[in-house]
Amino acid sequence: MKIIILGGVAAGAKAAAKARRMLPDAEINLYTDDTHISYSSCGLPYYIEGNFEDYRQLLVRSPEEFEEKNIHVHLRNKATKILPHYKQVLIEDFDNNRAFLTDYDKLIIATGARPFIPNIKNLDLKNIFTLRKIEDGINIKNQVLKSKNAVIIGGGYIGLELVEALVRQNLKVTLLEHGTHIMKRFDEDMSELILKQLTECANDRFEILTSEIVTEFSGDNNGVKSVKTLSGKDIPADLVIIASGVRPNSEIACESGIEVGETGAIKVNERMQTNFEDIYACGDCCEDRMIVTGKMSWIPLGSTANKEGRTAAINVSGGNDIFKGVLGSAVTRCLSLTMSMTGLTVREAENSGYNPVFVTVTKYDKVGFMPDANNITLKLVADKTTGLLLGCQAVGAGDADKRVNVVTSALLARMSARDFYNNDITYAPPYSPTIDPLLNAAQILASKTEEST
Amino acid sequence: MKIIILGGVAAGAKAAAKARRMLPDAEINLYTDDTHISYSSCGLPYYIEGNFEDYRQLLVRSPEEFEEKNIHVHLRNKATKILPHYKQVLIEDFDNNRAFLTDYDKLIIATGARPFIPNIKNLDLKNIFTLRKIEDGINIKNQVLKSKNAVIIGGGYIGLELVEALVRQNLKVTLLEHGTHIMKRFDEDMSELILKQLTECANDRFEILTSEIVTEFSGDNNGVKSVKTLSGKDIPADLVIIASGVRPNSEIACESGIEVGETGAIKVNERMQTNFEDIYACGDCCEDRMIVTGKMSWIPLGSTANKEGRTAAINVSGGNDIFKGVLGSAVTRCLSLTMSMTGLTVREAENSGYNPVFVTVTKYDKVGFMPDANNITLKLVADKTTGLLLGCQAVGAGDADKRVNVVTSALLARMSARDFYNNDITYAPPYSPTIDPLLNAAQILASKTEEST
Repeated sequence: MKIIILGGVAAGAKAAAKARRMLPDAEINLYTDDTHISYSSCGLPYYIEGNFEDYRQLLVRSPEEFEEKNIHVHLRNKATKILPHYKQVLIEDFDNNRAFLTDYDKLIIATGARPFIPNIKNLDLKNIFTLRKIEDGINIKNQVLKSKNAVIIGGGYIGLELVEALVRQNLKVTLLEHGTHIMKRFDEDMSELILKQLTECANDRFEILTSEIVTEFSGDNNGVKSVKTLSGKDIPADLVIIASGVRPNSEIACESGIEVGETGAIKVNERMQTNFEDIYACGDCCEDRMIVTGKMSWIPLGSTANKEGRTAAINVSGGNDIFKGVLGSAVTRCLSLTMSMTGLTVREAENSGYNPVFVTVTKYDKVGFMPDANNITLKLVADKTTGLLLGCQAVGAGDADKRVNVVTSALLARMSARDFYNNDITYAPPYSPTIDPLLNAAQILASKTEEST
Repeated sequence: MKIIILGGVAAGAKAAAKARRMLPDAEINLYTDDTHISYSSCGLPYYIEGNFEDYRQLLVRSPEEFEEKNIHVHLRNKATKILPHYKQVLIEDFDNNRAFLTDYDKLIIATGARPFIPNIKNLDLKNIFTLRKIEDGINIKNQVLKSKNAVIIGGGYIGLELVEALVRQNLKVTLLEHGTHIMKRFDEDMSELILKQLTECANDRFEILTSEIVTEFSGDNNGVKSVKTLSGKDIPADLVIIASGVRPNSEIACESGIEVGETGAIKVNERMQTNFEDIYACGDCCEDRMIVTGKMSWIPLGSTANKEGRTAAINVSGGNDIFKGVLGSAVTRCLSLTMSMTGLTVREAENSGYNPVFVTVTKYDKVGFMPDANNITLKLVADKTTGLLLGCQAVGAGDADKRVNVVTSALLARMSARDFYNNDITYAPPYSPTIDPLLNAAQILASKTEEST
């Protein structure tokens, strides 16, 4: 049994390890164009921030550890063509300057995603970066230590995590978002709350500007000097990070006849199988079924990649495992602010044909007399007709993600607001108020739906 | 419409406020033998600890605020007899030294619970306390400021919260537990882990001794001087707090023909109604249905009291509300240690006729490179035959209660370990590892059950 895995960050590395455990005698080869495998891409902002000094802490397992398990890891070996009918892959080996074909019985595509680069003049100036791979992190960190003024382009979660990282490294930071709102997966009212709360804690250390389209970088041989926007701003910068979202690395699939969905990512069934029986895909390169709506979506995330890699490996190894999908759960920190969500926003619920009702509450996360009590704002969404819970957004200095995670199980189980609001979540003053804000919101929400008692 | 409410800490105060909102014209009288109403009894350890100086921060609403809503509050007025057939209550008014009968259309019993006092010699010495009411908190705090050596009797959650409080007030603390384990609702292995982790962080500030039965206090007119145990110990103490559990204040119900369950607490249906149509009960004085088993139990807790008070008030006011029950969820902090649980332990599962399997994992609560990553030990329990999740216990310096609360919704929805293990809980390095310890445990647990894929 010959298993080939393309890509090795989260899904690919997990799939390799799991396949080895299930099939001790299989031949497993992992090819990646990267120079590292099995690392925490999500940890890069915290490395830049200085939470730890050695980038090797980001590595989960080294290539040597894989080799010890008889998994052959080929770094800087990029797959450029899949030949499903011959069950072969074309590999380009950069270091040895050669190309070769290799056979598989089962193929797992885990090629991940890459940063999207907007069309901006003078992109090739020095000290302009994206953040995805270990090298990106190392290069940015080196530059951070020499820089004073940073511009971050993009107000999504990576952009905001980088605001925290660079502020903690004492840079003056300007974040430019081309849209009208940052953290656009949230409803607009919640995005506005995020911007307001971040602005309140900025203290001249950083600035977040929306509706600013970057048109041009200016600089010289020493690197970037400033960032120009369509509105006429010219912001000094000796470090620029482009965090304008990511795109799936699905071209190799597409070009080889493997179906790609409307999202641009590879289509898979619940077994993580593509339209070819022996070809599986997992991680950021493939689509995810959104459990709440049943529709395919693309929400690349390390935790999902691990789950999908495991399912793909089990099925490749002759087992039968199902990955039911995702809830769109996410959490991000920027300085003291936690932003977290699961399921559908009101906007997404409307777009999916629901008749959403919602409740927004702002309350302490602990009993008010506890010295570390902080506010959280919770927005809980349900379908008016059925009462079905659809999603939760939570923002604040308080313990927001705890509440969102109580909702994840409820979404998975398709509970209504009425089923949910007397949920016996744990209570003690250091952990929550007597009536938790989540249950308070659910109680009011239940009264807004047409579900009968 | 005349509504009488007996008791006013959590359930009674909540019921009064909710009934007033539903019935603006009803006559509502609240009688309590206490000198305060509507306060956070659970907050008393944090007042003693010095988290805040003014005990009035414990008060949720003052009697005056109730009077403004035309709810008549009668402090130090103890109900000593209910006459269900005449729909009257006998009240003893301590301050005016009189007794009187008063009529009701609907009666809500919310008489709460009281500390259990073990049989120990010289209980009447000064500086020996229990902790339940505001006065108890004030008296203990006054004595704390004059004391050096404290003994706490009882290793349940109040005992451990008091260890934290007194250690933070720089007292030398000895906790004596008569049983073989502290935190006895946990399985024994988890109780042992709690004791081990607390002992490791004690640093000579406190000591916890199990299997120590207190037989006698010694002292003089100035108060207690030492605590003697059956094993022969004689521990110096100028402050003693007895935290040996609580008992329901159900005697008035019992003596008036209102049914009391095997737990000793008042029997109620899902509408919080007793065996008399017009008499309801809520809060610590009544039983709770344990949702996982369907059996009646008694788990007195402020958050449950609020929910039950609300349901009782809605039904008394002509509405129709159901309280389905509790999951036995709890959380306690002692210094850096969080102890949390929901549902059934292995022991409780066996006693309830299940065939439990379990998994215990010890992992970081965040990605390991985050500076505030801490261990948690999770024990997840399921029924072997059906795969149904039965309960979760979590202990550690890390974020234990977050994981327990994800399980509460799953128990409410009767999910199996297999349904649950790919749950899309939020992920980012400051909040959880890529593979959350809870999902890791659930995955292993699913493989131990006989539920088919």
